[in-house]
Amino acid sequence: AIDGMTTNHRIALIPGDGIGAEVLPPAQQVLDVMARRYGFNLSYTSYGDWSCERYLREGAMMPADGIDQLRDKDAILLGAVGYPGVPDHVSLWGLLIPIRRGFRQYVNLRPIRVFEGIDSPVRRARPGEVDLVVVRENVEGEYSEAGGRLNAGFPDEMAIQETVFTRAGVTRVLDYAFMLASRRTGRLTSATKSNGIVHTMPFWDQLVAERAASFAQVAWDQEHIDALAAKLVLEPARFDVVVASNLFGDILSDLAAAVAGSIGIAPAANLNPEREFPSMFEPVHGSAPDIAGRGIANPLGAIWAAAMMLDHLGHPAAARDITDAIASVLAKTDTRTPDLGGTATTAEFTEKLIELL
Amino acid sequence: AIDGMTTNHRIALIPGDGIGAEVLPPAQQVLDVMARRYGFNLSYTSYGDWSCERYLREGAMMPADGIDQLRDKDAILLGAVGYPGVPDHVSLWGLLIPIRRGFRQYVNLRPIRVFEGIDSPVRRARPGEVDLVVVRENVEGEYSEAGGRLNAGFPDEMAIQETVFTRAGVTRVLDYAFMLASRRTGRLTSATKSNGIVHTMPFWDQLVAERAASFAQVAWDQEHIDALAAKLVLEPARFDVVVASNLFGDILSDLAAAVAGSIGIAPAANLNPEREFPSMFEPVHGSAPDIAGRGIANPLGAIWAAAMMLDHLGHPAAARDITDAIASVLAKTDTRTPDLGGTATTAEFTEKLIELL
Ligand SMILES: CC(C)[C@H](C(=O)O)[C@@H](O)C(=O)O
Ligand SMILES: CC(C)[C@H](C(=O)O)[C@@H](O)C(=O)O
Repeated sequence: AIDGMTTNHRIALIPGDGIGAEVLPPAQQVLDVMARRYGFNLSYTSYGDWSCERYLREGAMMPADGIDQLRDKDAILLGAVGYPGVPDHVSLWGLLIPIRRGFRQYVNLRPIRVFEGIDSPVRRARPGEVDLVVVRENVEGEYSEAGGRLNAGFPDEMAIQETVFTRAGVTRVLDYAFMLASRRTGRLTSATKSNGIVHTMPFWDQLVAERAASFAQVAWDQEHIDALAAKLVLEPARFDVVVASNLFGDILSDLAAAVAGSIGIAPAANLNPEREFPSMFEPVHGSAPDIAGRGIANPLGAIWAAAMMLDHLGHPAAARDITDAIASVLAKTDTRTPDLGGTATTAEFTEKLIELL
Repeated sequence: AIDGMTTNHRIALIPGDGIGAEVLPPAQQVLDVMARRYGFNLSYTSYGDWSCERYLREGAMMPADGIDQLRDKDAILLGAVGYPGVPDHVSLWGLLIPIRRGFRQYVNLRPIRVFEGIDSPVRRARPGEVDLVVVRENVEGEYSEAGGRLNAGFPDEMAIQETVFTRAGVTRVLDYAFMLASRRTGRLTSATKSNGIVHTMPFWDQLVAERAASFAQVAWDQEHIDALAAKLVLEPARFDVVVASNLFGDILSDLAAAVAGSIGIAPAANLNPEREFPSMFEPVHGSAPDIAGRGIANPLGAIWAAAMMLDHLGHPAAARDITDAIASVLAKTDTRTPDLGGTATTAEFTEKLIELL
């Protein structure tokens, strides 16, 4: 920052569908408190109609130059996408996935914590003891457009899906995960399935072993995805950083959030760690059409996502203030939206959190 | 059966490695009690050296004509494979997977129950309320030898894994699952990921919808694998029959067994439903080299697998007697092997179960 100048961060807001538009304003309120406290500026550009409704009207989730419109932003805050009548693969491959890929957001970071005041469905997931992060490869692997259908409609019809793991693509996400583990408790677990999946997972294991050699301070192990899913339920406190391929990370992060009782409040960061392109931050919950428009959506996922955004933008203290306030509002008050068993509105819940900030 | 003749079932026993050899004799003891009670014969052929030790000595888990040696059997009872120093993919692709594929055991059936007397790690997994079965596609899909490595050792190295779903292969396992659901509570859930995986999972969904049309009495739904993993933790009692691809079924069945607290006692049946070839039955636990040779292995997985075998061989009442005895020994006694918190030996636990049979 140049002396006497306030750092300005250009933020793209994409509310998307359903409750997406109801959870972004609370996140902005919290961000603005932090901007005043820590002396930085946030300027917002809103892309209010990039959504399934737009798709139904115009045949596309975003304009043809959508990615280019976002290119000069420092970060993107996304609400949620998904709408009854629009197939998921349309809304996702029309907005979320192109942004992840177009901006090389090759790390999907999913922090999982058990908060005091939240009921975990798992006995051993006790507050304070579970604090892990899933580092998911976010742009290649099992999610690929390569492959197709043969003999459509005939008895010998088949579908082929190509999973592609590249050395560069796997190595960079592993480096991120090892680096993160070395800054946290120094423990890393790699999710694999090299006993069943013949070509890609042994390659993944090999690259993990190669990268591990450069991070001697990290104690790492690997677990087959089936056993790992089981262990997340049996001994969740054992894990710190879990690194996984696109599909495995998707499964493990939702599973771990469920174990922690936090599926409704969990955030995800889609990171381009080199900051060559904007990164994207989102609550993990969906657009929840059943409760949309009623002002009772839980804003904590979006607020936690905003905290991750500030951390990425170079304001770790502000990020910590926000996650501390999330922990406080859950532990010390009984203000809660209906999904957490309370009766508060989105606005009331946000206000209470800001009081504690 | 011809009047005056006793039905004879030819059983292949493959103890394998580690505790495999310690859990098959208890299963045989239980089978013999049932044979006397229900008036059928079991003749056993043991393949005692098909194992990792054999691999280390002779370079192969089983003889070159291994599959042919098993061909005239009515069923196969497998202990466990796996040995320190032998990579998992060697032991599995050298024995387990060739049997599954060679005998078109295209259904992998994994029953999951919460037994009284077993602690479940999940609060909502209460005894009597969770009783589900995972029907896993067992011979194609994500586990395939198609694919490979390009540019090995160079920066542009990559690995490609082909996932192949065929109409015939998916349809037959769906038919099995729908049929099973119609005989149970009439509910079926299909595991998918058609929002992320572009080619195979939408094909899977399409075939599910096609087959569902022939099973009007079954109420079915589908869940993305990430959400389904979470829901198995949040509301396990909701599920009855879960049908899934090879990889998804592998993950979900271990996860569900962990939720039920039964990972150490769960069985798997690898079925060729047409009975053109022998089916294979196995406990899900591994060879447990750490406790092998000490006579303290838990025999319940193998005994439950034997029950599934009798069911497949046309003795459902005998199968039920065995699972009832498993439920009784857990609910009504505190005899248990160390893995379940007790001090009993394998022999003592087996004896107590046979008393209750
Ligand atoms: C060992 C492994 C290949 C196997 C599988 O994934 O099929 C196992 O996990 C199972 O479920 O039987
Ligand atoms: C919706 C879906 C494509 C997406 C994914 O699997 O990536 C979601 O589950 C997520 O985790 O962000």
